[in-house]
Amino acid sequence: MTSIEKRYQAFCETLPESVDVEAAKERLLKQHVETPSWGYGAMGTRFYTLHKPGAPRNVFEKFEDAAQVQKYTGIARSVAIHIPWDKVDDYEELKQHAQSLGLSVGAVNANLFQEDDYVWGSLTHPKAHVRERALAHLAECVDIMNKTGSTILSLWFADGTNYPGQDDFRARKHRMEEGLAKTYAMLGEGQRMLIEYKFFEPAFYHTDIPDWGLATLYAKKLGPKAQTLVDLGHHPQGTNIEYIIAILIDEGKLGGFHFNNRKYADDDLTTSSINPYELFLIFNEIVAAEQDPAIELDIAYMIDQCHYIKPNIEAMIQSVVNIQTAYAKALLVDRKRLKEAQENMDMIEAEECLVEAFNRDVTPLLEKVREELGVPANPRKAFRESGYMARIIEQRSR
Amino acid sequence: MTSIEKRYQAFCETLPESVDVEAAKERLLKQHVETPSWGYGAMGTRFYTLHKPGAPRNVFEKFEDAAQVQKYTGIARSVAIHIPWDKVDDYEELKQHAQSLGLSVGAVNANLFQEDDYVWGSLTHPKAHVRERALAHLAECVDIMNKTGSTILSLWFADGTNYPGQDDFRARKHRMEEGLAKTYAMLGEGQRMLIEYKFFEPAFYHTDIPDWGLATLYAKKLGPKAQTLVDLGHHPQGTNIEYIIAILIDEGKLGGFHFNNRKYADDDLTTSSINPYELFLIFNEIVAAEQDPAIELDIAYMIDQCHYIKPNIEAMIQSVVNIQTAYAKALLVDRKRLKEAQENMDMIEAEECLVEAFNRDVTPLLEKVREELGVPANPRKAFRESGYMARIIEQRSR
Amino acid sequence: MTSIEKRYQAFCETLPESVDVEAAKERLLKQHVETPSWGYGAMGTRFYTLHKPGAPRNVFEKFEDAAQVQKYTGIARSVAIHIPWDKVDDYEELKQHAQSLGLSVGAVNANLFQEDDYVWGSLTHPKAHVRERALAHLAECVDIMNKTGSTILSLWFADGTNYPGQDDFRARKHRMEEGLAKTYAMLGEGQRMLIEYKFFEPAFYHTDIPDWGLATLYAKKLGPKAQTLVDLGHHPQGTNIEYIIAILIDEGKLGGFHFNNRKYADDDLTTSSINPYELFLIFNEIVAAEQDPAIELDIAYMIDQCHYIKPNIEAMIQSVVNIQTAYAKALLVDRKRLKEAQENMDMIEAEECLVEAFNRDVTPLLEKVREELGVPANPRKAFRESGYMARIIEQRSR
Amino acid sequence: MTSIEKRYQAFCETLPESVDVEAAKERLLKQHVETPSWGYGAMGTRFYTLHKPGAPRNVFEKFEDAAQVQKYTGIARSVAIHIPWDKVDDYEELKQHAQSLGLSVGAVNANLFQEDDYVWGSLTHPKAHVRERALAHLAECVDIMNKTGSTILSLWFADGTNYPGQDDFRARKHRMEEGLAKTYAMLGEGQRMLIEYKFFEPAFYHTDIPDWGLATLYAKKLGPKAQTLVDLGHHPQGTNIEYIIAILIDEGKLGGFHFNNRKYADDDLTTSSINPYELFLIFNEIVAAEQDPAIELDIAYMIDQCHYIKPNIEAMIQSVVNIQTAYAKALLVDRKRLKEAQENMDMIEAEECLVEAFNRDVTPLLEKVREELGVPANPRKAFRESGYMARIIEQRSR
Repeated sequence: MTSIEKRYQAFCETLPESVDVEAAKERLLKQHVETPSWGYGAMGTRFYTLHKPGAPRNVFEKFEDAAQVQKYTGIARSVAIHIPWDKVDDYEELKQHAQSLGLSVGAVNANLFQEDDYVWGSLTHPKAHVRERALAHLAECVDIMNKTGSTILSLWFADGTNYPGQDDFRARKHRMEEGLAKTYAMLGEGQRMLIEYKFFEPAFYHTDIPDWGLATLYAKKLGPKAQTLVDLGHHPQGTNIEYIIAILIDEGKLGGFHFNNRKYADDDLTTSSINPYELFLIFNEIVAAEQDPAIELDIAYMIDQCHYIKPNIEAMIQSVVNIQTAYAKALLVDRKRLKEAQENMDMIEAEECLVEAFNRDVTPLLEKVREELGVPANPRKAFRESGYMARIIEQRSR
Repeated sequence: MTSIEKRYQAFCETLPESVDVEAAKERLLKQHVETPSWGYGAMGTRFYTLHKPGAPRNVFEKFEDAAQVQKYTGIARSVAIHIPWDKVDDYEELKQHAQSLGLSVGAVNANLFQEDDYVWGSLTHPKAHVRERALAHLAECVDIMNKTGSTILSLWFADGTNYPGQDDFRARKHRMEEGLAKTYAMLGEGQRMLIEYKFFEPAFYHTDIPDWGLATLYAKKLGPKAQTLVDLGHHPQGTNIEYIIAILIDEGKLGGFHFNNRKYADDDLTTSSINPYELFLIFNEIVAAEQDPAIELDIAYMIDQCHYIKPNIEAMIQSVVNIQTAYAKALLVDRKRLKEAQENMDMIEAEECLVEAFNRDVTPLLEKVREELGVPANPRKAFRESGYMARIIEQRSR
Repeated sequence: MTSIEKRYQAFCETLPESVDVEAAKERLLKQHVETPSWGYGAMGTRFYTLHKPGAPRNVFEKFEDAAQVQKYTGIARSVAIHIPWDKVDDYEELKQHAQSLGLSVGAVNANLFQEDDYVWGSLTHPKAHVRERALAHLAECVDIMNKTGSTILSLWFADGTNYPGQDDFRARKHRMEEGLAKTYAMLGEGQRMLIEYKFFEPAFYHTDIPDWGLATLYAKKLGPKAQTLVDLGHHPQGTNIEYIIAILIDEGKLGGFHFNNRKYADDDLTTSSINPYELFLIFNEIVAAEQDPAIELDIAYMIDQCHYIKPNIEAMIQSVVNIQTAYAKALLVDRKRLKEAQENMDMIEAEECLVEAFNRDVTPLLEKVREELGVPANPRKAFRESGYMARIIEQRSR
Repeated sequence: MTSIEKRYQAFCETLPESVDVEAAKERLLKQHVETPSWGYGAMGTRFYTLHKPGAPRNVFEKFEDAAQVQKYTGIARSVAIHIPWDKVDDYEELKQHAQSLGLSVGAVNANLFQEDDYVWGSLTHPKAHVRERALAHLAECVDIMNKTGSTILSLWFADGTNYPGQDDFRARKHRMEEGLAKTYAMLGEGQRMLIEYKFFEPAFYHTDIPDWGLATLYAKKLGPKAQTLVDLGHHPQGTNIEYIIAILIDEGKLGGFHFNNRKYADDDLTTSSINPYELFLIFNEIVAAEQDPAIELDIAYMIDQCHYIKPNIEAMIQSVVNIQTAYAKALLVDRKRLKEAQENMDMIEAEECLVEAFNRDVTPLLEKVREELGVPANPRKAFRESGYMARIIEQRSR
């Protein structure tokens, strides 16, 4: 018996009887977290962008970095791309490059915020020619989905205004609805669009889709191929995100996540780095739904982070591991005891079911999962010791 | 020509040509702001409740105080009631008392938060007998609407939980939906229910209807007699409330307001006392919609304030006048110039249309309106000089 | 070897070499968390107060309940009192009652917010006679300290205003400074005053001591017997409280804590129930200072919670255990590795030092500590099974 | 009598007797608002920077644009510079260029955030050589002050960390204090340093000087040449900034302002564009202090805005005018009546003193002031009609 197996056995003995650890392990073996191509490049604040040696110079190198995350975690086998940042002449080549690395192309993220025109809006822009240009870009994105086998169109609109009076709110809403409907019509079989919301920034006075409420209202009008995308950093302070997750699950509209964390504004920090309990509570809702026969889930778990200072690949491994940890802890909640406590209106007992699961050190389970996945027990350490960073710093500076 | 007339004439000359001041005046003459019966009584913080001499001892005295607000402002001719705080044996008597004072009974506000059972929820409570009790209370409220001629059932749910795990979010949602549907079925011809939302408090971990998104999702499922109620103090910091108003108007779901203001949490301060520009921007959306033939509005303008220290009647007059002022300023926005500026994407010019309207001193117009309404030019001052307070302090201390 | 001992030995083997677990255990054996007398009574929101069977009817019963927390945790051997809520004729009797229960009287909390006059301020009140009354109350509190052997005067001022213009800010500041100086002069040898700050509530527009900055500015002017009191719930959202702790430690002004937690406003929730990582990071600063020979600490660790729905004694045990857990985790941070990582500017490695310590399940250490303290391994469970609640519900309803 | 004079006379007649409008006019004639060189260039969000035709290509052109603001407002006669953005070989030339335009060089703003090293801190950096480099930059700034006649060193530190554990809080504090002391020692006669604070961003976990409390604690330790700099956008939501102003005035530590406004985060919007009442309340504290013989003020009124989309010069004129308007309104508060109301504890009357002053349309007074200053009655309109923008767009695109 390996030491991992031994620790796992000992771990299993500490679990409550009603917890099915084998089922949890199966779930963990199938877990899939998508990393974003842009998370491997240099990203900055509005004040400065740090020069990072070894930063990838194109989308092919970004996929190579992403392959490292997959190599060491085993659960990060797709990569979201961002158009036009990741635009290439030959998407077949990109698709094959991905496959050769054991990866696939994940969500296609449209970029409707990096042209002069778009500072006034994209689908909501007052001028028809700009809206048409935005739609042409979205059509291009769907085309790339078709070429790369991607099934998700990821839509974040930076649309908004900076000052009262700048534009007519209801007119913008009508334009947004019209543009979304046209985009929806572009989607093929098995494809879906995820509508992201954001409370503030980069528009400073109003954001055209500020909250889950409006994103979901639009998704409901559009139809089953449209769902809501929850970026953890895009809420007002004090928001109960796990409750929003429960609502969206119940409405069949939880399309996916953009994982990250923040202290004050939308800081795109490492997932779980500020409030790990919150991430656990989010996964607690998901696990409860997974175990509810009345619920069907099809959630895209995607990371969206901006590693300003941290070394990108390590930070991404850290994030994937944090998400894995939160999921593992949530899978081991004693749901039988929780349900009983809730039925007895025994709130301390109910709370302690969650606290105990959160406080549990799930390392033995994760090591076992990693063994079965054929990846190192400590992904970050193994990556660090691999010498990959030194290699690319040398190669990419040539 | 009276001095009011003279000042009004001079004022009119300062207005842009495209502003129709007579139309504005007509709107102001028809404005209607409902005051709440509970705003006349002593309300406190969780730490203390101040003893206020002259505070009304029953709903009849509350209506007498409300009649003073109507007497001095001329636009506050209905009074919202709160059950069971305003419960009486004979609602016909209450209705006639109101009429004798030139008032009518406005919205009926259900109270589902002042019993031991309700700390765990009302319509969302895990136990069926509590949910049934809540429904019985709502049926009682609709009965009171029938007896008093009220057309609005005002629904604020304090429902929520205080700690993670306390209850099952989705189960609570199902119970809420079931309860709302049963309530909806109670409504008669010409009656509607307004669903209020609140981001936090008194539940400390999650609120069952935390935002406009969920309130409106429910209202949409229920049907045309259900709409959303916007309490200005119930949003996270930084929320663009005027944008929510525009969305709700566009969706036909803006049922009404609970007017107040706050600095940090839900402080129930005098409307407009912290950020008068925000109130103006809210009315700016309403006026724009009033002038849009595609839009039908039926908005209940209700004050919901807790006058902790301020003398209640004066504070209520202040609030009514502040709402009147914001509406007057919004009515005088040069919408032709605003529209042109927006079409030209001239954001400073567009913003200045609003700023100029906001900075305009509308006292001459308001004095003219008050003259036509037959109320004093300075309502608060006139009330203060009337001796009413001294009278009731004496009478009600007997 | 007991099973506790066995688990402890196994636990010790998992720790990094540079962590001194025996030293940590010594610290934990000496840990002292004060519980508040008012945390045992029924507390409510501004909307409602739940009736709790068995709630103590006087300060003697509150101490009996507090003795349960001490009995089952072993580290809660003092109780803060609140005057006039806990006023008695004979403080010698109270002191002896406490001693007979194995307790002592902790901080004396002044109450300067529950009289009509105080809605306008206490030490800051515009009228001299109210300020004098407040000072007389403070003198009474110091007298009670003398009689009970308490060394801490705990000062929370609800002082503030509700509307712009209500009072003169600088005049209030002068009055506050004068009042604080007079209070300072009352303190005897070995006594100190802790100045609490609060960002908002119950005053709605401005709070006279809103933040650590002003509390500390006053404490510095007053002298060594004045320090700052940090209530975890009294900060704006997004505040880095652990940084404030570090600053106060460095300035010699960290007098103590009021422990609790909150989701949005000052909700007085169970400590650590919303963001346990934050509590850990706070203790991480304290432990770092404890190990720094340049620093002298004299911190009063006090709980200040309002258990609205939770059963009070269990909730208090939960809080004490959560604080103990956070301290234990912080004591086991590998500070050698952390320091090296910081010196190497290796931010992921440094962060992981904290994350690993936080994720560590410290139950075996805590069970060992409890064994040595002579209390049950699972305090909350043991209390629940003791039948105490049933007993007092019966006794106190007579 | 000119129409301006007529309107002014009519305006004066509407004022309360106890308001000294001539004194107010004198104050307004002497008002001085400094504009920032960087406010004339293209600034962006972290997502995008708009290309603005006509944007100045160097500091000389920035001063030319600033001269337009002075030409049309008459109260913006100095310009803050930012080093190294505005670095020139010959500061005498810059000084004379400024003088030739009727301007002077205002505050010198150090830039300690745009080098790779500084992402870990400047004065707080763990490595001595980086701290020395930061000090060398500060010495260079003081040298530029000496050469240009500037008297203010404006210090904003982007210093902070992004993740728990990244660095040692107290060690950083010690380094900051040491660096500030060395900087203080560089200041000559008549020079001062203003220490800015910021609650968050660009550091995402902690900011080394997060609030007025720490900035002021440092300023007090340093001595009379060190004061606090208040940037209106650098506070948590809900902060009562006018109270901070009152405190700083009372402590003799209000060094100056960075004016702007924000809706959620630090958005650098046009001053007064989101909450004009707040700006008025800030000036209300200043005017009260100006009229208090016990108080000496030396406040630097500086704008710090990032005009992302708005045309820069117009936006700057708008800001200057908004600040002028707020000051004018505050100068016309009936302070006699306010004081009486406060003494009578008549809070509605006191509040109304402020509300009336805020609602007053001060255009006639401002037009009169502008006439005496020799600038157009409507600065923004006059600038727009001047053709300057068309000219520089043509010239600067060559």
